[in-house]
Amino acid sequence: MSRWAIGVDLGGTNLRIAAIDEAGKILEKVSLPTRTRQGPAAVVREICQAVGELIHKFEAMEGGIGIGVPGILYLEKGILKQSPNLPGWENYPVRDEIESKLRLRVCLENDANAAALGEKWLGIGRNFQSLCMLTLGTGVGGGLVLEGKIWHGFLGMAGELGHIVVAEDGLPCPCGGRGCLETEASATAIVRKAQEVLAAGRSSELMKFQQDGGELTAHVVYEIAKKGDTACQEIFESVGRYLGIGIADLINTLNLPLYVIGGGAAEAWDLFSPVLFEHVRQHSYIFCEGSTRIERSVLKGDAGLYGAAYLGLNGAVTAPS
Amino acid sequence: MSRWAIGVDLGGTNLRIAAIDEAGKILEKVSLPTRTRQGPAAVVREICQAVGELIHKFEAMEGGIGIGVPGILYLEKGILKQSPNLPGWENYPVRDEIESKLRLRVCLENDANAAALGEKWLGIGRNFQSLCMLTLGTGVGGGLVLEGKIWHGFLGMAGELGHIVVAEDGLPCPCGGRGCLETEASATAIVRKAQEVLAAGRSSELMKFQQDGGELTAHVVYEIAKKGDTACQEIFESVGRYLGIGIADLINTLNLPLYVIGGGAAEAWDLFSPVLFEHVRQHSYIFCEGSTRIERSVLKGDAGLYGAAYLGLNGAVTAPS
Repeated sequence: MSRWAIGVDLGGTNLRIAAIDEAGKILEKVSLPTRTRQGPAAVVREICQAVGELIHKFEAMEGGIGIGVPGILYLEKGILKQSPNLPGWENYPVRDEIESKLRLRVCLENDANAAALGEKWLGIGRNFQSLCMLTLGTGVGGGLVLEGKIWHGFLGMAGELGHIVVAEDGLPCPCGGRGCLETEASATAIVRKAQEVLAAGRSSELMKFQQDGGELTAHVVYEIAKKGDTACQEIFESVGRYLGIGIADLINTLNLPLYVIGGGAAEAWDLFSPVLFEHVRQHSYIFCEGSTRIERSVLKGDAGLYGAAYLGLNGAVTAPS
Repeated sequence: MSRWAIGVDLGGTNLRIAAIDEAGKILEKVSLPTRTRQGPAAVVREICQAVGELIHKFEAMEGGIGIGVPGILYLEKGILKQSPNLPGWENYPVRDEIESKLRLRVCLENDANAAALGEKWLGIGRNFQSLCMLTLGTGVGGGLVLEGKIWHGFLGMAGELGHIVVAEDGLPCPCGGRGCLETEASATAIVRKAQEVLAAGRSSELMKFQQDGGELTAHVVYEIAKKGDTACQEIFESVGRYLGIGIADLINTLNLPLYVIGGGAAEAWDLFSPVLFEHVRQHSYIFCEGSTRIERSVLKGDAGLYGAAYLGLNGAVTAPS
């Protein structure tokens, strides 16, 4: 049997744990709801139990455990500083808690960094040495892989691309800033914009959906936009505009060959990407030189899980070259 | 005698050439006006003559020549693609022309990258492995040193930090974009803002200066602001605001330990930096973690010359570790 390791994608809603071999094959995947209300200790117990079962089943794991977590980490200490998606986990020592229970090496990583690494290993970034990833979810996550390695920065906090300022004097962001990319291009932003459309009575389809008692999500807004609703289409054009400005900033700064867009709201690629490319062209003459690529994630929701497993297999040092 | 090399800082106005040893000591420095009107061949002849004289005088040069040039370069080919400061140099093969005349290795580099490297070698960045430099001149130049090396990106065009978008729907920039940092924080932007103040009749000091027939420069605006002119002070507060947003973006993206501001307009540090820090604090919670430094260049106008000499001494591969 080939070498394998464990990847954990600890989200605010779902907890996914997989045994993945060094060829990138998923041996087994477990999906559970994240019982955030029961606190970190209970969730860590569940993780450890699931990991223990996988190790028992497949035996002879040579790798360790990689775990992708949303939020701000103190990377060196293995501590989750804070996460809007994991209330009650403030300053929780995720790495040490799991390491001491399982007696296995645990590599903690920001979930968007893990997703960037996953795309580099097995996804759209396979043939690139450097790439930048944006994940459009509850927030906008970011990850940079530079010359094969996750770029962490000196405090381990690099790649906070959701907090690039794209809207001057824009809306307040939970980070304390204003006009962050996250306030304009996350799934949360899409829902907020849809609520504004509803309040202005600009979409009969949205109003109908709401009257039927449906829960307003970015996916719902996308479905209604796809059917031709102009006001909902404009929401995704706005997303494309701000993503375009943010990606142009990143191209002008880093001149990487590849920018990848993932996360749930990336499903609306067809609706936001034309405006995105228009703004990237306007704001980056480097992009206009040609050959810079902006692509949709191919691993979709599994990018972070693969990246976490890669860290389990290889440790935190380098990505595949 | 210790090892030495030649650094060339080819600006749109001044051409400076220095023999610098490996300890960073300037053995001799030559300053000439850049005769841009006579075209690149004539300027290259002047560079070669001055370099020849330095080699004749100090003998036994073991290093090569590093040359910092403003504008967009095709780095691998050693070609200056275009430069607003050097009209008539479009697609000029700077490196090969000098190499073939002097039969010495020539390392071509963007001037802001050279300045970043200079600050890393001998300036405020001496004790840092990574830094970001912004030069406030005719435009806003940028340079990134990551883990000791200039970060060039895959086309050699990284560090175009003057074209980060900071003003949504802002003024057009020569790059084709709008609201670029360069349109708000360069010496050119300072003069434009002063002209707006003049047109609105908001500064009697500026009007007096103009009536006396003086040439309006960023330095003049700075001098008038320093004397207490409110309208001119507001110009530098605006510069600080946009620099703050741009630097916050860079901190959130790269999480480097040091951001250096150089170039002529950095002399107004005392006037723009309070607003700069205010905006960095607002837009970057990573900065609020503490320990990220934003500093003024210590090498001032010589940063690029030192960086160029460093490239002459060491070639393009790495900066000092």
